[in-house]
Amino acid sequence: MVIVMHGQATAEQVDRVVAAVTDHGFDAHRSTGASHTVIGVVGEAVARLDPREFTLMDGVHEVLRVSEPYKLAGRAFHPDDTVVSVGDVTVGGERITLMAGPCAVESAEQMEAVAASVARSGATILRGGAFKPRTSPYSFQGLGPEGLTLLRAAADRHGLKVISEVVDRGDLSLMCDHVDILQVGARNMQNFRFLKDLGKVSRPVLLKRGMSATLEELLLAAEYIMDAGNSQVILCERGIRTFETATRNTMDISAIPILKKRSHLPVVADPSHGTGLRDKVLPMARAAVAAGADGLLIEVHDDPEHALSDGPQSIFPEQFAELCGQLRVIAPAIGRRL
Amino acid sequence: MVIVMHGQATAEQVDRVVAAVTDHGFDAHRSTGASHTVIGVVGEAVARLDPREFTLMDGVHEVLRVSEPYKLAGRAFHPDDTVVSVGDVTVGGERITLMAGPCAVESAEQMEAVAASVARSGATILRGGAFKPRTSPYSFQGLGPEGLTLLRAAADRHGLKVISEVVDRGDLSLMCDHVDILQVGARNMQNFRFLKDLGKVSRPVLLKRGMSATLEELLLAAEYIMDAGNSQVILCERGIRTFETATRNTMDISAIPILKKRSHLPVVADPSHGTGLRDKVLPMARAAVAAGADGLLIEVHDDPEHALSDGPQSIFPEQFAELCGQLRVIAPAIGRRL
Amino acid sequence: MVIVMHGQATAEQVDRVVAAVTDHGFDAHRSTGASHTVIGVVGEAVARLDPREFTLMDGVHEVLRVSEPYKLAGRAFHPDDTVVSVGDVTVGGERITLMAGPCAVESAEQMEAVAASVARSGATILRGGAFKPRTSPYSFQGLGPEGLTLLRAAADRHGLKVISEVVDRGDLSLMCDHVDILQVGARNMQNFRFLKDLGKVSRPVLLKRGMSATLEELLLAAEYIMDAGNSQVILCERGIRTFETATRNTMDISAIPILKKRSHLPVVADPSHGTGLRDKVLPMARAAVAAGADGLLIEVHDDPEHALSDGPQSIFPEQFAELCGQLRVIAPAIGRRL
Amino acid sequence: MVIVMHGQATAEQVDRVVAAVTDHGFDAHRSTGASHTVIGVVGEAVARLDPREFTLMDGVHEVLRVSEPYKLAGRAFHPDDTVVSVGDVTVGGERITLMAGPCAVESAEQMEAVAASVARSGATILRGGAFKPRTSPYSFQGLGPEGLTLLRAAADRHGLKVISEVVDRGDLSLMCDHVDILQVGARNMQNFRFLKDLGKVSRPVLLKRGMSATLEELLLAAEYIMDAGNSQVILCERGIRTFETATRNTMDISAIPILKKRSHLPVVADPSHGTGLRDKVLPMARAAVAAGADGLLIEVHDDPEHALSDGPQSIFPEQFAELCGQLRVIAPAIGRRL
Repeated sequence: MVIVMHGQATAEQVDRVVAAVTDHGFDAHRSTGASHTVIGVVGEAVARLDPREFTLMDGVHEVLRVSEPYKLAGRAFHPDDTVVSVGDVTVGGERITLMAGPCAVESAEQMEAVAASVARSGATILRGGAFKPRTSPYSFQGLGPEGLTLLRAAADRHGLKVISEVVDRGDLSLMCDHVDILQVGARNMQNFRFLKDLGKVSRPVLLKRGMSATLEELLLAAEYIMDAGNSQVILCERGIRTFETATRNTMDISAIPILKKRSHLPVVADPSHGTGLRDKVLPMARAAVAAGADGLLIEVHDDPEHALSDGPQSIFPEQFAELCGQLRVIAPAIGRRL
Repeated sequence: MVIVMHGQATAEQVDRVVAAVTDHGFDAHRSTGASHTVIGVVGEAVARLDPREFTLMDGVHEVLRVSEPYKLAGRAFHPDDTVVSVGDVTVGGERITLMAGPCAVESAEQMEAVAASVARSGATILRGGAFKPRTSPYSFQGLGPEGLTLLRAAADRHGLKVISEVVDRGDLSLMCDHVDILQVGARNMQNFRFLKDLGKVSRPVLLKRGMSATLEELLLAAEYIMDAGNSQVILCERGIRTFETATRNTMDISAIPILKKRSHLPVVADPSHGTGLRDKVLPMARAAVAAGADGLLIEVHDDPEHALSDGPQSIFPEQFAELCGQLRVIAPAIGRRL
Repeated sequence: MVIVMHGQATAEQVDRVVAAVTDHGFDAHRSTGASHTVIGVVGEAVARLDPREFTLMDGVHEVLRVSEPYKLAGRAFHPDDTVVSVGDVTVGGERITLMAGPCAVESAEQMEAVAASVARSGATILRGGAFKPRTSPYSFQGLGPEGLTLLRAAADRHGLKVISEVVDRGDLSLMCDHVDILQVGARNMQNFRFLKDLGKVSRPVLLKRGMSATLEELLLAAEYIMDAGNSQVILCERGIRTFETATRNTMDISAIPILKKRSHLPVVADPSHGTGLRDKVLPMARAAVAAGADGLLIEVHDDPEHALSDGPQSIFPEQFAELCGQLRVIAPAIGRRL
Repeated sequence: MVIVMHGQATAEQVDRVVAAVTDHGFDAHRSTGASHTVIGVVGEAVARLDPREFTLMDGVHEVLRVSEPYKLAGRAFHPDDTVVSVGDVTVGGERITLMAGPCAVESAEQMEAVAASVARSGATILRGGAFKPRTSPYSFQGLGPEGLTLLRAAADRHGLKVISEVVDRGDLSLMCDHVDILQVGARNMQNFRFLKDLGKVSRPVLLKRGMSATLEELLLAAEYIMDAGNSQVILCERGIRTFETATRNTMDISAIPILKKRSHLPVVADPSHGTGLRDKVLPMARAAVAAGADGLLIEVHDDPEHALSDGPQSIFPEQFAELCGQLRVIAPAIGRRL
């Protein structure tokens, strides 16, 4: 933290700020320039200090917070890319990982149809929701445990791994029995008790960015999970809320290169939620890969027009096949492959 | 829902849209103008239809969603103001209700000092957090159950009612044993399972607007609670996330008159979280009341400079007394009193 | 500017950053803590340095920009409030200044009706647009020079001063012939050539905040005008663009106390554009005054339902009278009067 | 426009709304459902009606605006892609058009170095600013007319076309003497008088999206220019303002497929301003092309570390060459080529 004093601040005001810093158990480095004095605050865990305390003191012009180094999630202490492995499937290595499947698990027939087709096209992980948090209490809420069984069975038949969203802390052990990767939704990104629990399970966690979360907050949420013991975290960009209403969310593609630079964790993108519209999924999926994403999480449905959930943003199996073909062309441009 | 066809849409395209509407069990009202055809979709529960399904059909120019009537939270079916009562304290009536107290319960001494002073100034409800969801795992997490006991005891000694935040579904019955009003934080506003549980308790719920929630989403969240059986809901504006960084959040004062017009539920404002800075709390508290708020939720601490949580946005007891004096002048301008 | 090095930055990397700072003609204050080195950059006009240049250098963790002191617009060098005077009318003193009138000047009859009524209620400045920048080329574009004549005549008959928007640099001298205060619209807030021209005229300038401008940018725009020679600047909050669609803009009431703290310039609010809806104007006008605004800019029309421009956000003369009555009650709460 | 009445609206309220519609010279199509009445408003130029007038009437639940068909800019009346031609260079056809060069023209040597290298790599249009609108009055303001001469000369020597920003209406004829494409900056996107002037020149216009402009507003601005007589408009995405501070702006890549669907005009992207940081330019440039952009506008400088303007977001000539190589791989994935 750096405290910038006003040009007219008195010596007493500077002393009082230095005393307040010391009072909190930190060291204050005073540096007096021609126009004003700057006080650097150093010590372990400076991040626990609330900068606003100093903002309110007399003579203070501005308090600048040094962004946290993210000891666990950041690149500073871990320069090499983390590769998350689930059996022989990896996320974060040379290959681009495709996770595809319906928004919600609806039936054995549906899962078989989707699993067969996405596996054929190039996906290695099957997605599908068993518990659906819905805006309306009247909407389809998912098949629950039965959905997990159907998802696992379809994946196993086609040599796919399984990812599914865990909605509530209470479901964690049930989820771990059926899935390979736990998906955490945007609305839970800052549910801190939940994050701590996720730190204690032995499954990789795909953490979605909250709808109004900064990239720094996303990395802090990952740090929470890692600090609690689980280092297998995958970051996921899925769109943020802005003033633009033409899309449900504004997919922040630049988040991908920024996260890749600041963190060693794998970064994937979800163009289905990122746009909310089927005909925008392919362009945004290509864009994410071209920008450096390590993988994609995509909603594919064998009959999206009759899907029980999010049909309009689900693509047809043929579109997924077409996308895989396009990505095979694009990936080598940046030294990757499918 | 209203489906607007392109000017050049063919008769077949119109027929296909009408068929799709009927297919979903709704009535389609076709109205053909000189320049284009408009299809009105009516029937029970139209809100369950996903407008994007029709956006993707050929010949469709645009799909307009009619905002939900909020059967329970809206004014349409309930024109009179709801007054939430807790013993002899009311929220939503002629009197402006002041809820004040520290961010976190820290000790018996602190609670006694704050309770005595805010009661003297004019507050009728004591606030204080026992469970604190913190961005950092290293920050003070609250006193837990013991905090609730201290809060209740201090309130009782000074004839105050009690409000406190419930952070996790699992704490609900414990909370109901100690508090009069359950506070739901911004991060839980769209935790739908939680909202359902809140519908089943016999305590009023103060529901805070999510950091990036529209007013329509806030009302839908209230509808969730009410639909599950609890009609005692208080809405709370506490700032939204915008591009402006001078304040932690941008307090949306206009939300107050808008919510009051659309809903019969009481509306209060939280200028402490809404601004994040002590010296902005009084101006924004006055503004909220002048704009028509039914009450305020304010952080007051007897020693904010040593508070364990959110000290910089907590005001001193003397500031709270000063504010009460100002509000006594302002309230009559709009036919209210303290 | 403060450059924070990575904990692992090498001595060579630090040296290279220091050299780059010196290279630009600034002094570098190096301060080496236990965990990392911090380099303070001081000297005249540091603000001209682009922080991104250092962000890109090896070993740099983060570059923190110290916000500008606004030599002219800021409080640091000018602690006392500026009071802008136009004859016997002041903006920024003890009295709250009401500027009211129609969005567009339409006719002599309209101006007479509005001027007579707002003068009676308590306004001291008459507003009215002669040149209207409209989103649609087919909308009413204003009466032009004739509008200015009608505006001036109506104001003079009722002892009012005149404010009107100058839309284009080319109109400046014409405007100065007819109006007392030049209004600059939100879309022109960062039209820098225009700002320079405004610095050379002998009329106070009311500068509206851009729709997506931070408060710092608003103060920099004021600084531009002042630096070019005109110190009579009035700041105006009129709503910012956010994700919320219930109002045209989100009026940022907290901008008022923040601007008042950072700057000595008068701050007024425009609740008509800030909300876009007639029935929200009164609550937001009261809120602005309660939060400390020095004045209001309000659209009043004698027949808003037939107004040629912005009728739905214009209030009736009776509503303006009612508002003035309310403000007479509220103002003393903060030591002001109408 | 569609007016939705409340379920409890009386017959008189409906009649009054219908009368108000007719009064404005439009036809009202009444359609009465089981739960409420919907009134469709049709006729020429409905867009000129202000929906808020009806929002305020008794009995009205909501007024839905049908988005404008953009008679000139929209696909509805012009299904085929527009290809803008400047001599043998096209924007909007099968080939992806690269416009590259420094932010500001600084010297003959600089322009020669950049022009030679970008032409060799694959650019066909040279960019360079002669008039620079700068946030600070102390920053480099451009070489003015001499800059245009240097730009033109360098372009001609290497067979390139020229694009440059026109900052002020007064400079239009000077600019037309030197450049092939007029660039309009984000801050001028809603300067309506300027847009009208641009409609009268015989040069294609590259129109940048405003920092807080919706895509609908961008298309309306294009419509303004086209309506005034100039159909050669190129749309440009350059980042919008959001709450995220990790990048200067958030580049809205999804704007590309949305604009391509709604409009027949070519769409290009500016990853330099879109991100503000050199090391993010390549990923975002690749993403834009993968998402379907017709071209790129990129800042390239032979010595960006000593650039007089925007050096940190300018890439090195070798980076531009590397990017061209990557784009040659990516383009065929979507049936395009460089």
